[in-house]
Amino acid sequence: MTLTIGVDVGGTKIAAGVVDESGKVIDEARRKTPAQETSAIVEAIVDVVHEVTARHEIAAVGVGAAGFIGADRATVLFAPNLAWRNVPLRDQLASKLDLPVIIENDVNAAAWGEFQFGAAGDAHDLLMVAVGTGVGGGIVVDGELVRGRFGIAAEIGHLRVVRGGLECGCGQHGCWEQYASGRALVRVARERALDGDALLAAANGDRANIDGQTITRLAQDGDELSTALIAELGQWLGEGIASLAAVLDPGLVVIGGGVAEAGDLLMVPLTAAFASFLPATDNRPHLEMRTATLGNKAAIIGAADLAKAAQ
Amino acid sequence: MTLTIGVDVGGTKIAAGVVDESGKVIDEARRKTPAQETSAIVEAIVDVVHEVTARHEIAAVGVGAAGFIGADRATVLFAPNLAWRNVPLRDQLASKLDLPVIIENDVNAAAWGEFQFGAAGDAHDLLMVAVGTGVGGGIVVDGELVRGRFGIAAEIGHLRVVRGGLECGCGQHGCWEQYASGRALVRVARERALDGDALLAAANGDRANIDGQTITRLAQDGDELSTALIAELGQWLGEGIASLAAVLDPGLVVIGGGVAEAGDLLMVPLTAAFASFLPATDNRPHLEMRTATLGNKAAIIGAADLAKAAQ
Repeated sequence: MTLTIGVDVGGTKIAAGVVDESGKVIDEARRKTPAQETSAIVEAIVDVVHEVTARHEIAAVGVGAAGFIGADRATVLFAPNLAWRNVPLRDQLASKLDLPVIIENDVNAAAWGEFQFGAAGDAHDLLMVAVGTGVGGGIVVDGELVRGRFGIAAEIGHLRVVRGGLECGCGQHGCWEQYASGRALVRVARERALDGDALLAAANGDRANIDGQTITRLAQDGDELSTALIAELGQWLGEGIASLAAVLDPGLVVIGGGVAEAGDLLMVPLTAAFASFLPATDNRPHLEMRTATLGNKAAIIGAADLAKAAQ
Repeated sequence: MTLTIGVDVGGTKIAAGVVDESGKVIDEARRKTPAQETSAIVEAIVDVVHEVTARHEIAAVGVGAAGFIGADRATVLFAPNLAWRNVPLRDQLASKLDLPVIIENDVNAAAWGEFQFGAAGDAHDLLMVAVGTGVGGGIVVDGELVRGRFGIAAEIGHLRVVRGGLECGCGQHGCWEQYASGRALVRVARERALDGDALLAAANGDRANIDGQTITRLAQDGDELSTALIAELGQWLGEGIASLAAVLDPGLVVIGGGVAEAGDLLMVPLTAAFASFLPATDNRPHLEMRTATLGNKAAIIGAADLAKAAQ
């Protein structure tokens, strides 16, 4: 059985998983992400891969990283969190690992993981909406990842949903992720929590301590404000997905990221907003909406599967 | 040499063209679109096709129609202008024509025409933006038309660009085509034209007479208001294309429809707005923007080419 490695390069940690042909992670290793120097990050990726290759015979390595990955699956064009610009990451890693390597955007990799081994089942297409700090996306059409001419497709968090809206790190205003992300959820919660609210009490009275997990937990316990905040996030997500459905007409949308853990508290208002804001909603078939099933292993599993093509 | 027929079913006329393998229209015929009865329109399509099949040996027929065409390329799910709902148009035509038939959305067909024989040249992907009464779209990725799970992809005119914006015929508010279409251009012109303006004079003083061709002609003659109106349309188009580029990352955008005849008066502000509103605009390659080259024959040529697959 062929084994490949998927590596998820995040802002705080680098996680490697050995993945079998059925998409099962059979071994794992981690490192902290070092300071923002290309060479140190490359060394850390090499190091974590070496740890697992010592224990398994590996055919190829797939690396998922946040940022713009070139259509060649070799070059990191731009990675804001890692301060990378036009880094030939594939070749740097391949020469040190002596293994075939491919690079992929982390959410594309996660979408591919869900498509092959997760929420997609036997669907032939999907739109992945990964709701974390920002909003990331992945698009699969007719069984293929849509990567775009330059490799930068599915940056759905930067769909503009409010003209002249909130400023975004991408340099624009009104991007979807300013309204529909985990960070937006926390921002609104901090603005809205009042003295006496359970949310502020849970944060020891300091609104800076309010985080997404607390909001989700309180909503699950029935707290009214927290429930409303998650419903509002669902509303923004549903409205944006309605626009994306006009463009892509996917049969399946998979909602992933930490916020998806809120379950029906998120998905019920999300699905209602989607149906209500879909153009010509009464005169067309509706897509299916599901939550992701691979959790934070989706990018590892997807990157490992994509690496098979690099053998 | 194999000849196929492309039929463009519009709200006012039905145009059929005999197209050779190089995408050249070698013969044509037309009928007025009859009243909104399925059977009368089917008869008119059959009639116009018979006119040209009497003169040529034809292998297959492709029909482009405005509306939602099912993923089976056989059924018209919903066509607002023709008052059709779940009409099995392919089989109705095939039985009467005794030829293989495929049905396609008219702008998808036009995008395919431009991709195969028009503005695309040797590009492998494109986003077509057809600016007519509304805004239609067509998406080609890796040499294939993206039709969506239900056949309704690329309805880009219903991307929401203004939350809570102008009402749209699709039942939603703030759809792109309410701001970036020929109809929007005329609406704004009628609102804004004042006594003494060349635009109102050209319309014999009646703002209801102002149309898109007059605005374009006056802009080409240097009229300030008309030039500003077309530039504003270009601005809306560029802003929307920036959002679509975040999602699709196409290498090429082709602007078609009547408004494209304004040339640089439209394309210069459009391209500037696109570059200015593109997320992370300074950290990524930019797509190429071109005007369509097949004019109002694009759908005929594209539908005829798609019909080859039905043989």
